[in-house]
Amino acid sequence: MEKIPILKMGKLLLVTIQVDLYDRLAESLEADLVQMIDKTGAQGVLIDISAVNIIDSFMGRIIGNIASMSKILDAETVVVGMQPAVAITLVELGLPLKGVLSALNVERGMELLQDKIALKEHHPEEPAHDDTE
Amino acid sequence: MEKIPILKMGKLLLVTIQVDLYDRLAESLEADLVQMIDKTGAQGVLIDISAVNIIDSFMGRIIGNIASMSKILDAETVVVGMQPAVAITLVELGLPLKGVLSALNVERGMELLQDKIALKEHHPEEPAHDDTE
Repeated sequence: MEKIPILKMGKLLLVTIQVDLYDRLAESLEADLVQMIDKTGAQGVLIDISAVNIIDSFMGRIIGNIASMSKILDAETVVVGMQPAVAITLVELGLPLKGVLSALNVERGMELLQDKIALKEHHPEEPAHDDTE
Repeated sequence: MEKIPILKMGKLLLVTIQVDLYDRLAESLEADLVQMIDKTGAQGVLIDISAVNIIDSFMGRIIGNIASMSKILDAETVVVGMQPAVAITLVELGLPLKGVLSALNVERGMELLQDKIALKEHHPEEPAHDDTE
């Protein structure tokens, strides 16, 4: 079981991280996710980290990378289910997960993303990548 | 990371199996799941096995157990995302996952469960446990 499954739910993709991310697994997750966004036209990515007890700078960077890549493909990323202890450690270590939204649990994350998608559909003035420069 | 996370989505619970289930992990998954059904009043359980390459009789039995336990607590279980090769092996080995519904992917599984829940709400003639005997 060398792959992290990506589940499509409507306009959103859900990734549940249950195992320690090592280099190759993180790389294949990034690749799978961008392909999946491309294939499905998903507009949001939910990353559930409720099973994660420790976030180190590597994992923080992977989550940041995923958020940046998704953003370029016009999908917002929300991290959900963070354990309280992980939140404390993140702040104490000064790893603020830049560019990543977060929500308490999957349900709230889905609401947040759906609000964002609805907002974007009504006010599409912020294109994800700007070709004018 | 010794726990399989259980995500609540509306009236449904979602479990993504990404690691090999050994005795203690399977036991804690069963315990967590019934507790979660009790706590949230969930009416359906989705088990995503898209990351599972091999289903042996142990895993088949665990899935069957989960379905039976959930059923007693009035929640239906649907297995989703089975790889084609796993389906072939299951049938060839004669492990038909009795009492478990299945669906192609999470979205279809959710539809199936939502239909079942809606049906139950309109025709509540089949109680999950009957105290009359």
